[in-house]
Amino acid sequence: MNQDYIVPNSWSIIEEGFDAERVRSSESLFSIGNGAMGQRANFEEFYSGHTFQGSYIAGVYYPDKTKVGWWKNGYPEYFAKVLNAPNWIGINVLINGEALDLAKCEVRNFKRELNMQEGWYNRSFEATLQNGAEVKVNVTRFLSLVQDELGVIKYEVTPLNRSAQITFEPYVDSGVKNMDANWEETFWEALGAEYGSNEGFVTARTFKTHFTATTFMHNSILLNGTDVQVLPGDAEKTDKKVSLSYTIEANINDTAAIVKFGGYTVSTNHAEAELINAAKANIASAKAKGYDALLEEQKQAWAGIWEMADITIEGDVKAQQGIRFNIFQLNQTYLGKDPRLNIGPKGFTGEKYGGSTYWDTEAYCIPFYMATKDQQVARNLLTYRHNQLGRAIENAGKLGFTNGAALYPMVTMNGEECHNEWEITFEEIHRNGAIAFAIYNYYRFTGDYSYIPEKGLEVLIGIARFWHQRATFSSHKNKYMILGVTGPNEYENNINNNFYTNYIAKWCIDYAVAQIARVKDEFTADHERIMGITSLDAAEVRQWQKVADNMYLPYSDEFGVYLQQDGFLDKELIPVSQLDRANRPINQKWSWDRILRSPYIKQADVLQGFYFFEDHFSKAQLEKHFDFYEPLTVHESSLSPCVHSIQAATLGRMEQAYTFYLRTSRLDLDDYNKEVEEGLHITSMAGTWMSIVEGFGGMRVKNDTLHFEPRIPEQWQGYSFKINFRNQVLKVSVHPGETRFSLEGGRQLKVVVNGKEVTVQPNELVTV
Amino acid sequence: MNQDYIVPNSWSIIEEGFDAERVRSSESLFSIGNGAMGQRANFEEFYSGHTFQGSYIAGVYYPDKTKVGWWKNGYPEYFAKVLNAPNWIGINVLINGEALDLAKCEVRNFKRELNMQEGWYNRSFEATLQNGAEVKVNVTRFLSLVQDELGVIKYEVTPLNRSAQITFEPYVDSGVKNMDANWEETFWEALGAEYGSNEGFVTARTFKTHFTATTFMHNSILLNGTDVQVLPGDAEKTDKKVSLSYTIEANINDTAAIVKFGGYTVSTNHAEAELINAAKANIASAKAKGYDALLEEQKQAWAGIWEMADITIEGDVKAQQGIRFNIFQLNQTYLGKDPRLNIGPKGFTGEKYGGSTYWDTEAYCIPFYMATKDQQVARNLLTYRHNQLGRAIENAGKLGFTNGAALYPMVTMNGEECHNEWEITFEEIHRNGAIAFAIYNYYRFTGDYSYIPEKGLEVLIGIARFWHQRATFSSHKNKYMILGVTGPNEYENNINNNFYTNYIAKWCIDYAVAQIARVKDEFTADHERIMGITSLDAAEVRQWQKVADNMYLPYSDEFGVYLQQDGFLDKELIPVSQLDRANRPINQKWSWDRILRSPYIKQADVLQGFYFFEDHFSKAQLEKHFDFYEPLTVHESSLSPCVHSIQAATLGRMEQAYTFYLRTSRLDLDDYNKEVEEGLHITSMAGTWMSIVEGFGGMRVKNDTLHFEPRIPEQWQGYSFKINFRNQVLKVSVHPGETRFSLEGGRQLKVVVNGKEVTVQPNELVTV
Repeated sequence: MNQDYIVPNSWSIIEEGFDAERVRSSESLFSIGNGAMGQRANFEEFYSGHTFQGSYIAGVYYPDKTKVGWWKNGYPEYFAKVLNAPNWIGINVLINGEALDLAKCEVRNFKRELNMQEGWYNRSFEATLQNGAEVKVNVTRFLSLVQDELGVIKYEVTPLNRSAQITFEPYVDSGVKNMDANWEETFWEALGAEYGSNEGFVTARTFKTHFTATTFMHNSILLNGTDVQVLPGDAEKTDKKVSLSYTIEANINDTAAIVKFGGYTVSTNHAEAELINAAKANIASAKAKGYDALLEEQKQAWAGIWEMADITIEGDVKAQQGIRFNIFQLNQTYLGKDPRLNIGPKGFTGEKYGGSTYWDTEAYCIPFYMATKDQQVARNLLTYRHNQLGRAIENAGKLGFTNGAALYPMVTMNGEECHNEWEITFEEIHRNGAIAFAIYNYYRFTGDYSYIPEKGLEVLIGIARFWHQRATFSSHKNKYMILGVTGPNEYENNINNNFYTNYIAKWCIDYAVAQIARVKDEFTADHERIMGITSLDAAEVRQWQKVADNMYLPYSDEFGVYLQQDGFLDKELIPVSQLDRANRPINQKWSWDRILRSPYIKQADVLQGFYFFEDHFSKAQLEKHFDFYEPLTVHESSLSPCVHSIQAATLGRMEQAYTFYLRTSRLDLDDYNKEVEEGLHITSMAGTWMSIVEGFGGMRVKNDTLHFEPRIPEQWQGYSFKINFRNQVLKVSVHPGETRFSLEGGRQLKVVVNGKEVTVQPNELVTV
Repeated sequence: MNQDYIVPNSWSIIEEGFDAERVRSSESLFSIGNGAMGQRANFEEFYSGHTFQGSYIAGVYYPDKTKVGWWKNGYPEYFAKVLNAPNWIGINVLINGEALDLAKCEVRNFKRELNMQEGWYNRSFEATLQNGAEVKVNVTRFLSLVQDELGVIKYEVTPLNRSAQITFEPYVDSGVKNMDANWEETFWEALGAEYGSNEGFVTARTFKTHFTATTFMHNSILLNGTDVQVLPGDAEKTDKKVSLSYTIEANINDTAAIVKFGGYTVSTNHAEAELINAAKANIASAKAKGYDALLEEQKQAWAGIWEMADITIEGDVKAQQGIRFNIFQLNQTYLGKDPRLNIGPKGFTGEKYGGSTYWDTEAYCIPFYMATKDQQVARNLLTYRHNQLGRAIENAGKLGFTNGAALYPMVTMNGEECHNEWEITFEEIHRNGAIAFAIYNYYRFTGDYSYIPEKGLEVLIGIARFWHQRATFSSHKNKYMILGVTGPNEYENNINNNFYTNYIAKWCIDYAVAQIARVKDEFTADHERIMGITSLDAAEVRQWQKVADNMYLPYSDEFGVYLQQDGFLDKELIPVSQLDRANRPINQKWSWDRILRSPYIKQADVLQGFYFFEDHFSKAQLEKHFDFYEPLTVHESSLSPCVHSIQAATLGRMEQAYTFYLRTSRLDLDDYNKEVEEGLHITSMAGTWMSIVEGFGGMRVKNDTLHFEPRIPEQWQGYSFKINFRNQVLKVSVHPGETRFSLEGGRQLKVVVNGKEVTVQPNELVTV
């Protein structure tokens, strides 16, 4: 953890001072993205120090050959890697012939700013090169939200102590590698390059998956803000790379600049033969608008996002910065426009984990997107899983399941499993539960039942079939059990009767059975269609129901709590608070067996179940379980603090709720887990949003009605958020002692605040 | 399984007919070794078909960089690979300029014979080449037991249809690779080559471990049995390889032959500067003796081994062939001469598993070597672990244990752990128990207590400390437990309270405490020395004792059996007999999670405990446990059938005992597990020996006395074996209704047969 890293600021992420040790971490924190592409905040110019280069294109991945120590049956042959894409941001810079390289200069007044309000990233510094030249550099970069194949860079150099010859060498390069390639192979095959006077194009295709991308650039040169015609010299052109070279003389305090337009056109969106034309169209459009108009357009587009998604916090700038950083990154990663895409755990900020889709999407991200975007976005995320149902059935088949049972992959790009650790891939099957829960949650929030007869019911049936087959009957206990699983708490492997898993499995069956009945009553044609596709009959459903009705749930009479799993009480239940700090984080200090036999919990597990099914339990039960499990929880998953923050708030433990809130919202900014250099924790950022809206705001949807129980941490003077509830936008503003509601929309809205019904009329402020 | 593979023969392993599909399997089955080196039965001449090339030098290994999918703290950085050594057996052959290549000839009368009585391997065939030449080939190869750096090949070619020009191209080559290299690296660095007229030497050093080996050859050419002087032409010489070329004209029915002496001199046994001289000394000695005398010497040496180790079976040639194959392979692998060596699971027959030392040595091999060799051999095997105690303490330290607790590695070459699968490396800790048990077993059998005060006690203390620290106290059950282990049954991972593990842990502490007391009484100086080294005091021992006295052992009152682990009864206990054959072997047909939640047992687990601690339980208890567990056992470990054979025999179930005996003794010959091409199952071969001696013979040692309960399968007319018991050799010969004993030694020996004491006088036959 490093609380002095980022300068507190309500709208910007700011780093001051150059520290080579922090370059990789800052490359993560200052990443930019526009939903279609993104990059780490790598320097445009060459840097000989430690750096982790990364540019990414949404939906473009590579199935790297699996690397395991010991092969197990059922492992996938490939692991879908987040693919480092060709580089279009590169601009090497020479001052009087010497390469500008921050590892070899004296650097002063180095500053990075990621302006979240307006969606741009700036870097500025002064440097003295080894040849004695002093220059000031100012670079602004953004990825257009409006024209999402386009990125823009303005790179300005000002000589400070003598006139200088400044050379800009912008390039596009497909000769890139993945840092995490299993076998040190390259993943891109160069198909060729072309260039015109100020343009360059390299086209490359991924091996195996055959995604083709043209990486393009267009450059213009300015002196003191005015276009100057400089003919490029020394062009380097190979199949992989086009580099142009522009040299310009600048006097002291003159500013020489290059404006580079760049980006990708990709075969997922264009015919392969049209890629270069599409790239040229992007360039033409960008040239027509010009840099200033593009930047203005960007600010407007981000203003539109913030208008709906912003959360304000008064009196606590770090908390404010934290929540905006989370909301900003989620929107950089996924905008919900393309149902083929999903929300990668590192977004466009790193390679780690591979794949783009985890249960995080359903468990954490969908509530955020449901409430801050059009409901079509959440529906797209659900549809993504429906589109992959066939692959989930295949995947279950590889593990011996039959008859249309579906097991969604732990990690995927295209529906195929691409993870290979038996205790996760084969056993962390609770993921299936979250996928069913999201269908319920979508309907609960949006009131749009149509998704279920159209698509959702098939998914629910595949999942119910899986749970039915996966349960085994213990004649010893006369109950159905689920043996050999890993629950949400991944610090236990291959355990029997994980409460969370058993509970959600039972719920999945009950819910599927209820929806079959409802669809039969209300959507007869869909019911017939689906029964036809799935060959489901009443006898099979009765078999499922037997499993759900007789599901074993481990419980301790002594403690009055559900047990995380069989045998949990046999552990030495020493609370985390009594553990020597030197042991933490245990995942870096202890061997795996020691973690497994310890009682320590990585992230909410039983409590995750209480979060999903809060209304199945009393507040007293929640309190008892919170008090039993939280003290054993080390929160070494980014997904843990948010659930605990919500539950602490629900229990009125505001100090604890606030601590968890800070931990979730500033996880990356303060680098709690000392790993931000690998990339950001994108999906858990949605949990931060939930901490405020569901935790402090106490928002729930019950019986088609929004409920609130607003609470405010004593560190704050106030906070506000907006909710898109059934196509009207409710703004909620909470201050000590009062909560204000206002509504953008055409119909009055009844909400329940602390148990009392309140009617909010459109465009009228209600104070409670 | 393939029962028609090997021709039944009481002293030889014979294959008839050439089948390209069987080449790799036969390369395993016809492997030869002499304890110091060995190879797979690769063809001397070039073969373009599928082959698995392997030559191995005892104790020469390579620490290959670990390959895992997901790193866990505590994993070793390296995996010690069995190293494919330079090739000295190669002799390419050309007939009239065309390479002899069995993949490209018409082959007739192909036969392999591995003569176990005399210790040589022969291959003969007739071939018609594409150029029309017909030749007869006869090749004999052996690795000298007497001069164990030397191997000998006589390769004879006889033209059958026309005179022919025959070219022999013998070579030595260090440019070899490991089939299982994790990163496709080469492991040998060539240091240079030299050659004389009929000699060649290549010297190479392993990377990292820096073992240096000179691989040498000397060739002589014969025509119809008479030396002829042929000057080598076309010598190829690189740093890695020396190849010589001899051409000779042969008429129809003339036999042209090359006799090649070859082998290795290694820096483990010679100064590095002396390797070539040592190789020359080997050649000189071989030349002085000549081929015939070397072969005769070989026969004599093997006769000496068989004199002590042979087991005869009358009336069942397949059973006879099986047991001799097992005894032969064990002696090819390990002769007990060098305490730095141990017994690799594949011996000199393959690369699989890596490492040379598993708990197999203590659990299975030591009884065989104790009874068929001088007791120093078993003592060397114990000493090997004592020498590695420091490393075992380091290894435990990596997993968080302190104060001299020792955890012996799962797999090792030099004492360091070199395995990397968390559920095995970190959790299959029962291995520590077998290492302590072997100390007890050695004393029980040999009566030599001196090992314990000298060396064994330190090992026992390290192991007791480990168990004490590894146990956790369940306040819930008021017992000590061992959580998160993998037992001998590796089809369960990360289970709690594996009966076998808990039982042997308790026993290890009890036994260590008793030996501390005895050494204190009887070997005061050793006691003081050891207490000094280990800083052990009485208070610590009392803490251990608390754990042992309160160890939890899972037990079912309902079934009256100890449970393999907590929760075992929750499984669906469907016996293997009701499992569709298509599901087996489950380790090839099922995904890992399915195996884990099934009740199926890979190898004896609770029953392994009953095997070690037979006298702690009644025969009725054994029967109840056997009847409970055996029906759930799939015996997919090579170590399983032998224990079950012994216990079935003990229970008088002779048909079952016989079936298990055949399975253990002919596991490789009949390729039960369809994997013999990867190499032989060496360590389980000692279990075959136990099946006869302890199973059918009913041999036990109780109170310094040999006990027997001889039984005979109805398929046999008789069987006999010899036991070196305390430096006298007792021969036991069993026939229906009578058992004969005879003794080579100077003192009378009391034995107990079926509960009755019998006195055997030296050199006098006793019939019971």
